Amino acid sequence: MINKIKLYHGDGGAKTNELIRQIFLKNYGEAEDVLSDSFVFNTHASKLAYTTDSFVVQPLFFRGGDIGKLAICGTLNDLATAGAKPLYISAGFIIEEGFDIEALCQIASSMGEVCKDNGIRIVTGDTKVVEKGSADGLFINTSGIGVVSEHYSPQDIEPGDEIIITGTIAEHGTAILLDRYDLAIETNILSDCSALSHLISDLEMMLPYIKRMKDPTRGGIATVLNEIADYAGFNVELLEDNIPIHPQVKAVNAILGIDPLYLACEGRMIFVVKKGYGSKILQLLEELCGCREAKMIGCFTADRQKLVYMQTKIGGKRVLPSLESQTVPRIC
Amino acid sequence: MINKIKLYHGDGGAKTNELIRQIFLKNYGEAEDVLSDSFVFNTHASKLAYTTDSFVVQPLFFRGGDIGKLAICGTLNDLATAGAKPLYISAGFIIEEGFDIEALCQIASSMGEVCKDNGIRIVTGDTKVVEKGSADGLFINTSGIGVVSEHYSPQDIEPGDEIIITGTIAEHGTAILLDRYDLAIETNILSDCSALSHLISDLEMMLPYIKRMKDPTRGGIATVLNEIADYAGFNVELLEDNIPIHPQVKAVNAILGIDPLYLACEGRMIFVVKKGYGSKILQLLEELCGCREAKMIGCFTADRQKLVYMQTKIGGKRVLPSLESQTVPRIC
Repeated sequence: MINKIKLYHGDGGAKTNELIRQIFLKNYGEAEDVLSDSFVFNTHASKLAYTTDSFVVQPLFFRGGDIGKLAICGTLNDLATAGAKPLYISAGFIIEEGFDIEALCQIASSMGEVCKDNGIRIVTGDTKVVEKGSADGLFINTSGIGVVSEHYSPQDIEPGDEIIITGTIAEHGTAILLDRYDLAIETNILSDCSALSHLISDLEMMLPYIKRMKDPTRGGIATVLNEIADYAGFNVELLEDNIPIHPQVKAVNAILGIDPLYLACEGRMIFVVKKGYGSKILQLLEELCGCREAKMIGCFTADRQKLVYMQTKIGGKRVLPSLESQTVPRIC
Repeated sequence: MINKIKLYHGDGGAKTNELIRQIFLKNYGEAEDVLSDSFVFNTHASKLAYTTDSFVVQPLFFRGGDIGKLAICGTLNDLATAGAKPLYISAGFIIEEGFDIEALCQIASSMGEVCKDNGIRIVTGDTKVVEKGSADGLFINTSGIGVVSEHYSPQDIEPGDEIIITGTIAEHGTAILLDRYDLAIETNILSDCSALSHLISDLEMMLPYIKRMKDPTRGGIATVLNEIADYAGFNVELLEDNIPIHPQVKAVNAILGIDPLYLACEGRMIFVVKKGYGSKILQLLEELCGCREAKMIGCFTADRQKLVYMQTKIGGKRVLPSLESQTVPRIC
């Protein structure tokens, strides 16, 4: 019984087909109709969203998820930022020779699970194998197509518009740090890695009051808010007290000397909301979406320096710059 | 002046944005509207095709192309097999730290050129950088969306149906072999790497008589015809004399002991054509599509062993098995 990936698994012949059928289709829960070079589908949607991401996270398995779960959630969340409900996903694998087939099964199974939970399908894929030493275990690329809700379109941001985060921050980045460097710190921190597609359905009627959505992955909320401030042309004022951070995340990052505002989330969304609609949306997030840690964390001001700054607990102001280079590589 | 890729180019911050703008968008010839997490587009098409491929070819630059050209052509050709004209492409890069930025520019420029030639756009992408030694230079994943022609749908294959190849075979595989192993054989062989999307437009009125299309990449025409025979449930009979092979390709493969029937093309299509329509389609391929080496190479017979065999010049029969494992790894 072969338990390691061989070069021939990537040659496009009988062994590749066997791998696709026995590992991928089986664990995805997919039918054989997805085996041709292109998947053909009918749609009546007039507005579609399309996105892609490559995943090189290390380690491949981490507290709260693995590269497979991350790959599907990442793509679903990118679709959600466009107000889109997902339809179909593609998955391309680049596997290092010698990779453990059991681990590959687990990863494919995680992918299948997220798809099942979100009512979507992985309909096209590709498998390549490279020689031992030519890749770091496994890389996955996903792309996704979704249907954009007719209730959503991005709008210009104005002073007073409110900023909401759907949950506690920096848990994915912290989980990766703990597992990658095998840090002997006892915590129950898990990656927040999860799919946010349900937000688009749950909040559909409120989408006209949501001006912009963005998931704060690489670079964390500080980087993402700088991007939005830059786009908006106004300053962002954050309230330190309102930013939801798990106390253990705060503690671990204090030990490591890392600012959690710059660490990735993989299951959180930032909403920019029309002035005055924040509390209603917050209420729905809590009641409908199960986002009990959602918080209004700040708002846009009339100042036009496009800065992000924080009102600290002791009454000071701290500017959160857009970093030239981030702290933790390969978190997704 | 930095001329090598650094880890920070993949961290999602300012340096990643700079790389995307200065290398990718510039060379793709793309506008800034593709910079958000998801690209949103309107469509009136009711039938779409969707495909993905990862590219790990070595060497990255080869006679007749490079990994960038190959990545776009490969995805366009997969869409073409579904009778689809391409709309949009995604491109995900996994780059090894230290990769030459000038080489990256060339590759992005090749991609842009194919897109321009085919009137399509790269609308969503992703860039990851891994540490030196964690990847073999550069891997690219592309996916694509196309509109399926209303004139095309795959049909059941019957005995007598004819098989056409749009040009000479095995040139891509042979080019890769020559360049990878730096073989001191003087030839003017180039990879046939090219986009086949134009076939769908050029032959649109004949699509109802085309029952199936497939580009013979990994595993060559022998592997692909075995797959089609298996699907069809009938034997394939090939005429050795009709299979178009460049004499130098034949010579090089004779020296190397490799059967060109199992070597990849990256710019050829196999058509299964309704009995009696082969010569008309062949004529159009020559006159309209510039496929001057297109040939009718065989047909389906009534035998149900699902075998592919060849009538040899000397009157014999040679079965072309579906190989368990192919000869040349990482040709795409």
